[in-house]
Order: sequence, then C-alpha cells, then structure tokens
Amino acid sequence: MNGADRLDEICKVAARMICQKGYDATSMSEIASAVGITKAGIYHHIEGKRELLFAIMSYGMDSLYNSVIVPARGIEDPEERLRAIITNHARLITSNSDPQGNNFVTIVVDETAGLMPAHRRKVNQRKRSYVDLIRHTLTQLKDQQKLRDVDVTAAAFSLLGMIVWLSRWYDPRGRLSPDQVADDITSIALGGLLRC
Amino acid sequence: MNGADRLDEICKVAARMICQKGYDATSMSEIASAVGITKAGIYHHIEGKRELLFAIMSYGMDSLYNSVIVPARGIEDPEERLRAIITNHARLITSNSDPQGNNFVTIVVDETAGLMPAHRRKVNQRKRSYVDLIRHTLTQLKDQQKLRDVDVTAAAFSLLGMIVWLSRWYDPRGRLSPDQVADDITSIALGGLLRC
Repeated sequence: MNGADRLDEICKVAARMICQKGYDATSMSEIASAVGITKAGIYHHIEGKRELLFAIMSYGMDSLYNSVIVPARGIEDPEERLRAIITNHARLITSNSDPQGNNFVTIVVDETAGLMPAHRRKVNQRKRSYVDLIRHTLTQLKDQQKLRDVDVTAAAFSLLGMIVWLSRWYDPRGRLSPDQVADDITSIALGGLLRC
Repeated sequence: MNGADRLDEICKVAARMICQKGYDATSMSEIASAVGITKAGIYHHIEGKRELLFAIMSYGMDSLYNSVIVPARGIEDPEERLRAIITNHARLITSNSDPQGNNFVTIVVDETAGLMPAHRRKVNQRKRSYVDLIRHTLTQLKDQQKLRDVDVTAAAFSLLGMIVWLSRWYDPRGRLSPDQVADDITSIALGGLLRC
C-alpha cells in the first residue's frame, strides 16, 4: 500500500470510529490500532487529530469531485446533467456504504464544528461550489420552462438532502441494491423537480 | 417559567451549544450559564449530561409527535395525509429555526452515538414508528396506483432526507419565508412521489 492509499484507509477507518464513538472520544492510537499500524506510524501520515478530520473531509470532497462534479461539467444539456449528478452522487454513497449500513465519510463531512477555521473555510468553499453547480443547472432548467414553480435554492437543497440522507439509512446488506436505490432516488428527484 | 418550560429552554440552548462546539466540549456549567441559572440549578432539572442528550431528543420527538404525527393520524385519505405530514414537518423545522440558521434540536436527534443504550433504543423506536406511519401511507398510495414505481422504503427515506436536511441549510433571516419553503418542499416531494 502506498502513502496515499494508506491515508485513504486511515480516513475511512477514522470516519467510522468518529461516527460510532464521537470525535472527542476517539484517540489517534485507537485509530492507528484499527488500521493496523503503530501510533508513530499514523503520525507519519497525518500531523494530528484536527488535521485528520480535515483529511477525512478532503477525501470525501475529492471523491465527490472525481465521481460527480467532473463528469457533470462535461454534459451540456441541463436535464441530462441533473440526471447524472443525482445518479452518480447516489451511487457514490450506496456503493461505498460500510456493511454496517452507513457511509461514514459522508456523515463526517457534515460535522465541520471540530475543524480549524482555515480548514472549515476550505471545506465550505468546496461544498458551495457543488451547490452552485446544482443551482446553475436548475436555473438553466427554469429558463427552459422545465423546472416546477419552486425556488431554485430550496430545490437544490431538497435534492441534496435526499441524496446525502442515503448515508444515514442505506444498508448494503438489505434487499435494495446500490443501483436500484440510485435509480429510485433519481426517479423521485427528477419527478419532484421537473414539470410533468 | 415552570419546570417543564425551563427544561424545554435548557434543551434548546444545549442543542445549539452541542452543535456548535461538539457534545464532549460542552459542559453542564456552560449550559447552565447560557440559560442563566446556576450549575446546581441545572441539576435540579436534569440528572447529568447523558440524560440531557436524551431530554433534547425526547423534546424533539415530542414536538414531532404533537405537530406532525397526531394530526396525520386523524386524516383518512392517504394523499391528504402525506401532504399534511410533509407540510407540518417542514414547518416544524423552519418555524423553529434559530436565527443562526439551524434547527439544532433536529440535528441533535440524529446524533444518537452519545446516548445510553436504553435511551438509544427508546429514541430509535419513536423514529421507527414515524417511518412506519410514512411507509404505511405510501403503501396505501401504491395500492391506489398513485405512487410512482419506486420502492416504498427508498421513497420514505428520500422524503425524510429532504425534510430533515432543512435543519442544516434553512436560514430564517434569508429571503425565503418558513411557509414558502414548506410549500416548495411539499410540491417537490409530492411531485417526486406521486404519478403525474
């Protein structure tokens, strides 16, 4: 395993522990031991616990960027772009779900209270840029008279809530496959946002 | 202020502090001082910090029960019941939003990691009973051929995600009024769940 892969692994394990025990109750040595490295070893990859929290969020935002934002930017038609955003984001969550039924990285990304201010600003900026992509797409659909008569911001966050909430309830051991859930969410979201 | 009102006040203030600083970093004396009572005074209302966490969640679930579940149970037609559930739940969040733009009680209700097991079971049971009410309503709509061709569980949690996420983004100081947002969410959710 190279350094970058090891850091990803640390981020995923730490995210699960933070969700289960809380940020303050989780120590660097426990994370190291869960990953199977020494306490000195973990500090080779990451400076401290607050930096680790930022690393987890950056890992989550990088995944979103690569799997959702980059492909969406390549799609000109707004309806097709919206469909791709929903399906790719839902699949990113369902296909990375831990067997215990949660995508812990997604959950940690919303717990910015523990971040240092400079890191919080960075994470919030990346989130805002994603919301702006969705809002821009919905505004284009509004101009084409394809959007329901709803506020674009309320529509963007309703969509995000529906997708992000997957990380709290979807259980990959259950009867719904990752693709089926992503398809259902896409169908509900498009039905809710677009005129019949 | 009587004892019950004082406890509600403690729950709301504590929820905001927990969201802003984290559960572990928030002390009982800080909560007491923010409410304007002594540390001894707060222990008159609540036994300890873990009991307080449970009290906040019970306060949130009681509000949901009174404002959403009870009225919904009185509505026979499933489409009207679904509409009432969405609008009342969305209004419960938007009309209680803190000026800083978050309904902290709603957010804390989803952080069950810090609860004692017996309390966690109780909170989860109350949540499950709400999900069951929504699922039952959607199943009735499916039987009437009014539901889109989606899984009832995926539909129920998509709806919940859309509503609960309001607590993370809705800012009552912004240009959207609580009623406008509740109406937009209702229109998006019904459009997404029901056939055209």
